[in-house]
Formats: sequence, structure tokens, C-alpha cells
Amino acid sequence: MLGPGDAIPAARVWTDAREGPERWSPFEVVGHLIHGERTDWIPRAEMILRVGEAEPFPPFDRVAMFRDSAGKSLGELLDLFARLRSESVVRLRAMALTPADLERRGRHPELGPVTLGQHLATWVAHDLSHIRQIVRTMGREYAEAVGPWTAYLPMLRPEAGEA
Amino acid sequence: MLGPGDAIPAARVWTDAREGPERWSPFEVVGHLIHGERTDWIPRAEMILRVGEAEPFPPFDRVAMFRDSAGKSLGELLDLFARLRSESVVRLRAMALTPADLERRGRHPELGPVTLGQHLATWVAHDLSHIRQIVRTMGREYAEAVGPWTAYLPMLRPEAGEA
Repeated sequence: MLGPGDAIPAARVWTDAREGPERWSPFEVVGHLIHGERTDWIPRAEMILRVGEAEPFPPFDRVAMFRDSAGKSLGELLDLFARLRSESVVRLRAMALTPADLERRGRHPELGPVTLGQHLATWVAHDLSHIRQIVRTMGREYAEAVGPWTAYLPMLRPEAGEA
Repeated sequence: MLGPGDAIPAARVWTDAREGPERWSPFEVVGHLIHGERTDWIPRAEMILRVGEAEPFPPFDRVAMFRDSAGKSLGELLDLFARLRSESVVRLRAMALTPADLERRGRHPELGPVTLGQHLATWVAHDLSHIRQIVRTMGREYAEAVGPWTAYLPMLRPEAGEA
């Protein structure tokens, strides 16, 4: 069987695909997830527990990955993400959060007061949302290749939108 | 770290979620992928090579999984799918397909003439499309839980559609 890394070199044309000039490629999305692992999910959770609403989270840098991913391969980024995510899960468990902790509030720089529970739910939903973006971007690269089967695959049609 | 199976029992409410009465849950989607592995992707590829356009593919049973998955756990289905997919890849490689083979035609019962290349591209796009369906269904279960972050997560809003 192929390991995850084995398949990547051949798929470069896919993982660098983008749906438009302002859209992110799967490669860039992985870089964005790495930046979230470093600066958003666990750091903000710890900040909620430490300072509450007293000061807003530092803003999230949505373009950091264009700098940080430069010169790296997708395989390197995936390995790095897997390691950082493992570390995040260890840190999350070490917090030993209670239901009452999930009601504690922090302050988002744009959204205002948010609870720790909402923050952790968003971590999950954000993962899912970017998986969706990746598979849509990759799938649309096959819009021609599937021929008449596009009739059964609405995701491949640009007019289906981005949601 | 959690293994894939460890996380599943707690997530049952998620993997049985559906977006509406006629929509499939993630659990049902995995059953559908299993049925495709058994009756669609490799069997139809072999049929194209064997009989070409002489006879149409047998129709695909889109509700087989309601019967076949009954009484099984999601962990069992995922293990079965992983095994069947591995076997499919072995069989695909054993075909040692050439570029000329990819132009060979079969006959779809509804779509008419299709090439082997289109069929194999559809296999991939079909996977991606169902991953998208699964993450959308799971993500929308968190529409309330994320609180104000829904503003940044259009996938979680039902009006965003299904594509």
C-alpha cells in the first residue's frame, strides 16, 4: 500500500490547485492549519483560562503561511501539522477541563465575548470546513476528466458555490 | 494518541447525524462507499476491458447499505472499507493500464458511452464528494456550539446549500 507521503509528489498539480486568484490551494490550507495550531487553538484556550475577558486575543494572521511554508514540501508540512496537532491534544487533555470551564469567557478581537466551549467547538468545525475546501478544490480539478459523470457530482460544477 | 476507533463511540451522535430525512448520515455514506468498492469501481473497470460497450454496466444499488450495514458499528465498516480499498488498489495496479486503455469505452446504463479514464477519475471525485458530504453533515451539528464564530464558517449555515 502507498503511505501518505508516497502519493504526494505525483499529485502536486492537484495540491497546488486553486479555485481563483484569491483562493487558497490545499498546500496553503495545510500551512494555515499549522499556523492555527501554533497561535490560535491552544494559545487562545490558555489565554481564556489565564486572563478571561480582560484582554482580547491577539489577531490571527491569515497570511502567515505564505511566508512560513515557503520552500517546504507538502510532505514536510503534513508531518509538521501531525506533530503539532498531537502536541495540542496532549496540552488540551492536560487542562483537564470541567463543564464549568467551558463557560469561561475570553474576548475575540472582532467577535467580542466568546466562551471556551465555543472556541473548542470552532476548532473542530474549522478543521471540517477546511477539509471541505480541500476536497472541493481537488475535485474541481477533475471536472473535465470525469466526462458525463459531472451530472452526478454537483461539487465539481463551479456554479454550485463555495459553501 | 487516540486511534481512529477510540474516538468513534463518543461521536455516535455526530456520525448518525443527517441533514434531512432523505439525506445520508456519515455512517450510511461509509456503507455506500463499501458497496461501491464491491460492485462499482473495480468490477466496472474490469467489465470495460472485458466487454467494452457491448453491454451496459449493471445498475448501481444506491440503497444497498441500508441492508448491508444493519447491526454493524462504524468501526467495523471503516475497517471493512479500508480492507476493500486496499484490495481494489492491488487489483487496479495489476491491470497495468496503458494510456490507450484509458480511452477504452464501456456503457453506463444511464449516461451511455464512457471511457475507462473517465470511470477512474470519477472514482476519485466520488470519494472527494462524499468526504465533503461527511464534513458538512458533521460540521452543521456544531452550528450552535460555535456561537458567534458561525460568521466565519459559512459551511455551518444551512442556506449555504449542499454543493
